[in-house]
Amino acid sequence: MIITVCRKEHFNAAHRLFNPTWSNEKNEQVFGKCNNPHFHGHNYELIVKLTGSIDPETGYVYDMKLLSDIIKEYILDEFDHKNLNKDVKEFENLIPTAEHIAMVIWTILRKHINPSYTLTIVLYETEKNFVEYAG
Amino acid sequence: MIITVCRKEHFNAAHRLFNPTWSNEKNEQVFGKCNNPHFHGHNYELIVKLTGSIDPETGYVYDMKLLSDIIKEYILDEFDHKNLNKDVKEFENLIPTAEHIAMVIWTILRKHINPSYTLTIVLYETEKNFVEYAG
Amino acid sequence: MIITVCRKEHFNAAHRLFNPTWSNEKNEQVFGKCNNPHFHGHNYELIVKLTGSIDPETGYVYDMKLLSDIIKEYILDEFDHKNLNKDVKEFENLIPTAEHIAMVIWTILRKHINPSYTLTIVLYETEKNFVEYAG
Amino acid sequence: MIITVCRKEHFNAAHRLFNPTWSNEKNEQVFGKCNNPHFHGHNYELIVKLTGSIDPETGYVYDMKLLSDIIKEYILDEFDHKNLNKDVKEFENLIPTAEHIAMVIWTILRKHINPSYTLTIVLYETEKNFVEYAG
Amino acid sequence: MIITVCRKEHFNAAHRLFNPTWSNEKNEQVFGKCNNPHFHGHNYELIVKLTGSIDPETGYVYDMKLLSDIIKEYILDEFDHKNLNKDVKEFENLIPTAEHIAMVIWTILRKHINPSYTLTIVLYETEKNFVEYAG
Amino acid sequence: MIITVCRKEHFNAAHRLFNPTWSNEKNEQVFGKCNNPHFHGHNYELIVKLTGSIDPETGYVYDMKLLSDIIKEYILDEFDHKNLNKDVKEFENLIPTAEHIAMVIWTILRKHINPSYTLTIVLYETEKNFVEYAG
Repeated sequence: MIITVCRKEHFNAAHRLFNPTWSNEKNEQVFGKCNNPHFHGHNYELIVKLTGSIDPETGYVYDMKLLSDIIKEYILDEFDHKNLNKDVKEFENLIPTAEHIAMVIWTILRKHINPSYTLTIVLYETEKNFVEYAG
Repeated sequence: MIITVCRKEHFNAAHRLFNPTWSNEKNEQVFGKCNNPHFHGHNYELIVKLTGSIDPETGYVYDMKLLSDIIKEYILDEFDHKNLNKDVKEFENLIPTAEHIAMVIWTILRKHINPSYTLTIVLYETEKNFVEYAG
Repeated sequence: MIITVCRKEHFNAAHRLFNPTWSNEKNEQVFGKCNNPHFHGHNYELIVKLTGSIDPETGYVYDMKLLSDIIKEYILDEFDHKNLNKDVKEFENLIPTAEHIAMVIWTILRKHINPSYTLTIVLYETEKNFVEYAG
Repeated sequence: MIITVCRKEHFNAAHRLFNPTWSNEKNEQVFGKCNNPHFHGHNYELIVKLTGSIDPETGYVYDMKLLSDIIKEYILDEFDHKNLNKDVKEFENLIPTAEHIAMVIWTILRKHINPSYTLTIVLYETEKNFVEYAG
Repeated sequence: MIITVCRKEHFNAAHRLFNPTWSNEKNEQVFGKCNNPHFHGHNYELIVKLTGSIDPETGYVYDMKLLSDIIKEYILDEFDHKNLNKDVKEFENLIPTAEHIAMVIWTILRKHINPSYTLTIVLYETEKNFVEYAG
Repeated sequence: MIITVCRKEHFNAAHRLFNPTWSNEKNEQVFGKCNNPHFHGHNYELIVKLTGSIDPETGYVYDMKLLSDIIKEYILDEFDHKNLNKDVKEFENLIPTAEHIAMVIWTILRKHINPSYTLTIVLYETEKNFVEYAG
């Protein structure tokens, strides 16, 4: 009885897309207005999905309250109302695109979720742009 | 030409999470406010997905009107405006978590959908908590 | 500078529509499946709107964190994961229709919000049924 | 590092479901009100998903601006504010069901997206009816 | 105790914006792609709002089931899966803009709703374009 | 025939809530994490509403394409992918709360919309926090 349980959370953050090994011109050309040196920001919608078997005693694959607490402690408290480039150490040398943010979140949560569960991340940067990452 | 067609429906129901083999204390500890003996409730959003090949004469994988009728007859008429614990026989001895509700819906619908179709259920208990089940 | 600030919250509750001065037949006829004696339930979406002037020092009409705390203390902690008919004293002698729930929420919040603010409640019982109440 | 990036767009179109090799009676029986000879219409929501590896220099799987431009040029400019049956040549001999529209969009976009990317289409005909196609 | 109750419904229709007293050039210039002679279409979201006093016996301002039935009989059965220009007599000599559709719906419903209720119509033509009409 | 037409747009921006006449401690106490000196950000959803009479020749209160162009030129091009505190001159001496942003947008648009129209702004900072301003 394999089933996937999903939890949606959100955080608000500033970021800038910028490759420090490139000239300003190339950054401007590739990243356009996302390269604004003063930053812009988003309401990120985060969906964390765990696939596993149902515990017959609880009827749960995973306690959603516990999952929400783990997301809060390791992701929201680090990312919410932050500047991803300046405040989050994982992006010191990594461009905070939606792709990279999803990978970083997956990597952090993977350490705190029992390996018996498959972990998938969906991250909405805007309603029109989102990414899915399963490791 | 394999494609997936999806139909969204909804129902409103009361439920309570409670394991009768446990003490009240353990139920309270595990299920928290979901264990309220007077029940609480949800607007459940149900998505039924069928994967199969397109009929060249109709351009349909499955007639959505027929799928909607099947969902209405076997799921909505049984679950909508009901108390899942008290009114739905499948939960007499099964805790009505979102996981179990999705499994029960899948099992019921599986009998009424030709086996040539793959069947997947997505069930939203709230906007933040949902499950996916593919049998 | 009069402006309206709005805060959305939600709660999940069970309820039953039933007029104890009527026969079962009349209750069934008027309230239909909403009259299920075992209750059903909803995910209620609540929007609280305050209209007032902007404080020039903060740029706020009202601190949304404070409004959220007031809603949590006086509404969510009393209504969420509850049976409105059985667990909420305001509905001991009042049918918990969306109209009455909105009025009760307005009346409770009105005591905790400075009278200089106009207070409006929007309450979604489902995505298709909702009410607006301004006192 | 395989990840999926998704872009949502939309278009508004008229269509009619009708099989010219059938009698009017059979078209009416199978397609019901979707067979209205004067057409009806929809706001189609289109999600285009590309799965591939992240370019380490940009942090992108695919430039979403470029994807949006490709969708605009080859899909929106051909489908938006059009009558699918009369204005879009791919449906001259193909019934414009959601299944077929998704397939046609996939086939068009497949020519303009490097084969190193997996391509998936999700198409919402209404909020309740949608299809997923991965080729 | 004055309160507003709201019901959301939807219909799918084709239409064309065209002023028959103008030249084709002027129609093209004013209405752009909305002037496509082959029509295009939309998923219209309709919200009907009634403002009145609460009936103390039912706790209802208006029975939402009855309101839904009235909307179905007089609006959805006439507008859904129709070509507004060709199939709906109210638009024989009236351009079916969102403004006019909302007015027509208001005028039709006004005859079937007791004048003691204030009636307001909200009509979404797309997620981005909508109108509000209160008579 | 007075009716309201509404147009939804969006922009993504960074901001910081900070009163320069206060100590850091007071800013921290009042604005909490919104006071992060490195900024955070949002996906702002903007609804612009115009109330006026219908032009009998077009069936329009206002051309939504023209309204969209005005919003793009005077608001989106100035606010989108910007740091409101640093890049938008209106906030040089004004804290960019949702209230103030809505007022600024109203004031800018008021100059470009004929005074015969009533103008109302709705601005969503997040799905849970939004403001309404009618001048």
